[in-house]
Amino acid sequence: MRAEIVSIGSELLLGQIVDTNAAFIARHLAAVGLDLFHKVTVGDNLARVAAALTTAIERAHVVITTGGLGPTADDVTREAVAQAAGRPLVFVPELLQEIEAFFRARGFTLSPSNRKQSYIPEGAIPLSNPVGTAPCFIVEQDDRAVISLPGVPREMEFLLVNRVLPYLRERYRFRGIIVSRLLRSCGLGESRVGEVVGDYMATGANPTVGTMAHLGQVDIRITAKADDEATARALIAPVEAEIRHRLGDLIFGVDAEMLEDVVAAGLGQRDWTLTVLEAGTGGLVAERLTTVPGAARRVQALVMEAEAAGRHLGVALGSVAALAEAVRVWGKSRLAAATVIGAPDGEAGQAIYPTRIGVATGGEGGERAAEYPYRFGGDFRQVRVRAAVMTLDRLRRALMTGSA
Amino acid sequence: MRAEIVSIGSELLLGQIVDTNAAFIARHLAAVGLDLFHKVTVGDNLARVAAALTTAIERAHVVITTGGLGPTADDVTREAVAQAAGRPLVFVPELLQEIEAFFRARGFTLSPSNRKQSYIPEGAIPLSNPVGTAPCFIVEQDDRAVISLPGVPREMEFLLVNRVLPYLRERYRFRGIIVSRLLRSCGLGESRVGEVVGDYMATGANPTVGTMAHLGQVDIRITAKADDEATARALIAPVEAEIRHRLGDLIFGVDAEMLEDVVAAGLGQRDWTLTVLEAGTGGLVAERLTTVPGAARRVQALVMEAEAAGRHLGVALGSVAALAEAVRVWGKSRLAAATVIGAPDGEAGQAIYPTRIGVATGGEGGERAAEYPYRFGGDFRQVRVRAAVMTLDRLRRALMTGSA
Repeated sequence: MRAEIVSIGSELLLGQIVDTNAAFIARHLAAVGLDLFHKVTVGDNLARVAAALTTAIERAHVVITTGGLGPTADDVTREAVAQAAGRPLVFVPELLQEIEAFFRARGFTLSPSNRKQSYIPEGAIPLSNPVGTAPCFIVEQDDRAVISLPGVPREMEFLLVNRVLPYLRERYRFRGIIVSRLLRSCGLGESRVGEVVGDYMATGANPTVGTMAHLGQVDIRITAKADDEATARALIAPVEAEIRHRLGDLIFGVDAEMLEDVVAAGLGQRDWTLTVLEAGTGGLVAERLTTVPGAARRVQALVMEAEAAGRHLGVALGSVAALAEAVRVWGKSRLAAATVIGAPDGEAGQAIYPTRIGVATGGEGGERAAEYPYRFGGDFRQVRVRAAVMTLDRLRRALMTGSA
Repeated sequence: MRAEIVSIGSELLLGQIVDTNAAFIARHLAAVGLDLFHKVTVGDNLARVAAALTTAIERAHVVITTGGLGPTADDVTREAVAQAAGRPLVFVPELLQEIEAFFRARGFTLSPSNRKQSYIPEGAIPLSNPVGTAPCFIVEQDDRAVISLPGVPREMEFLLVNRVLPYLRERYRFRGIIVSRLLRSCGLGESRVGEVVGDYMATGANPTVGTMAHLGQVDIRITAKADDEATARALIAPVEAEIRHRLGDLIFGVDAEMLEDVVAAGLGQRDWTLTVLEAGTGGLVAERLTTVPGAARRVQALVMEAEAAGRHLGVALGSVAALAEAVRVWGKSRLAAATVIGAPDGEAGQAIYPTRIGVATGGEGGERAAEYPYRFGGDFRQVRVRAAVMTLDRLRRALMTGSA
């Protein structure tokens, strides 16, 4: 059974925002076994949105729209769905009451334009939206369904998980399920990883294996199709075992697990605290670590340039291992890192940033500190991400062995 | 003249990565006046990629593909373009030499699978790629062009700007140009902003006006179509002036200008330094500020929980204004902020996080400190972003007046 996503918003076609919603929806459709073959983006133009919906309804059973449900004049999704489905828009008083209640709870005043949001296509199933003011709805046409969700990610995500997926599971019986397993690695480039797992990458295999490069990280995706989840997982298991055997501790995590999750879990298991000096990464290491629930109480960071850090900590620059140890003492923590990105060599666009990462551990086993040099290419934002990723990987390795 | 983007990669349809490339390309196509009406995403399946390309070539003059040019078995773009264009793939020795040179410069060894990357459709124009190993190419079919770029953002961006846009400008004469101006505001919700500028939002107007909500921020987009850029800008100017008049200092920036750019510029103009305590935002404020070129030397941050900060700084908790002043003294800076996100009230999914932002200024005019309370709803990651945005906005206002 096929699904199609129609993302609506001129800002998407003008490139002013990135469509993060589509990825979220795609992930959830894959999990219930809906095949997503097309994802289409159109602007805030009534005729074009209606045309895209007409095409989508022809080639997919389930069409999910995002965006264009807001209160302003350029929000055309309600009218476009009504046109594509050949129905008028009707006023639903209950939807207006819900919007009013949402505004009251937050002490806001209802805007007249919010009233527009209470109109939905005749016969549509309204979806109550406790997390926002955009009422959503499902239009059923024969065996098809057009599901309109808001563009605001947090509202869309809540509604998809709590309203749409239960609806889809109930209305349609999915005969197949797609299960995907991600193995995440740090330390080898994509072409090297591709060679190591290349014998699994033939098209048409089940499971299929693919690679994806991120900054400083390569993911290996193992995807199986089967009638049920248990069978799909059983297909994945031996492939995963063999790939893990080949890549060893280069694989740091699975599925949604990121390096920061692994480092935060390691800090918890050892009951350690961590202090990071970010001279170049600007807070990125701390920001990633502190998104992990519960990790904030184990993580501290100093964001400043290396010279300023040397003055603050009373340590001569030179060795980042010594700097990491000084940071560790300052932060009264068992583990510390000091990441220093140096001035770039080479011309813009092809600049290489010499980067040094120091790691220090202390406590019962005595103090140990080590230093790792890197040369990262790219623009500065990307170099920061690579440096933050490698810092997290060095911290992961120190937590694995218990020592810098 | 129409363009279409075809994003290739199963990871996009499985939702494992977000398509940031499409937004970048969309922005640049809009700037040269190409109308982008469709953006389509397909997986790593040769038949479906070829079919999507055939459709795209029918309805658009310029088709840009991203992804699927890597060295691994699931990279099918080269073959799909060859099929859609009805041409064989041919080996281009110069491309292999380029890849070899790239690897040598970095001390890497060439993988046999990289050889596959030296094949492109017969008659295609190769695009040299000094920033990566994926050779790219343009296939001209009658008056159409299919342009295949890599999926790695930094490579794609370099090639689009330095190879593709000059090619497009030379080959096609664009009769129209779209110019977009973004006014960025902080402090009002989207429906309020929509009402304030609603009289400009009628469809078919030139320029058109639209709004976009982000976390803590609402952008107002003014888009004009004209034969040349000067005419488009002249259409935009009076609308911009009137909207600025209505929204006053709620508008903090234009176009690519973010709050961090405005704060960094303000620090430079006053020759001030800034220290931020991030108890909850986890480094996000510093991370955003230090992405601004040259700002790192004026910005320091302490990332730790409020209690730990109180102990470090020797200040009793209670007033975040006092905490901000202590941070300012610790950091020896003219300006400081202390952002503390408290424990949430209410159930998960609808939790409200009480958040306090303290701002302190010092120097010739004497010390001043102020405290601003907020209540942010949403999940914790979103609350952090809102808190970081409001911290930056408070810093912007302190820099405008010269005092907390």
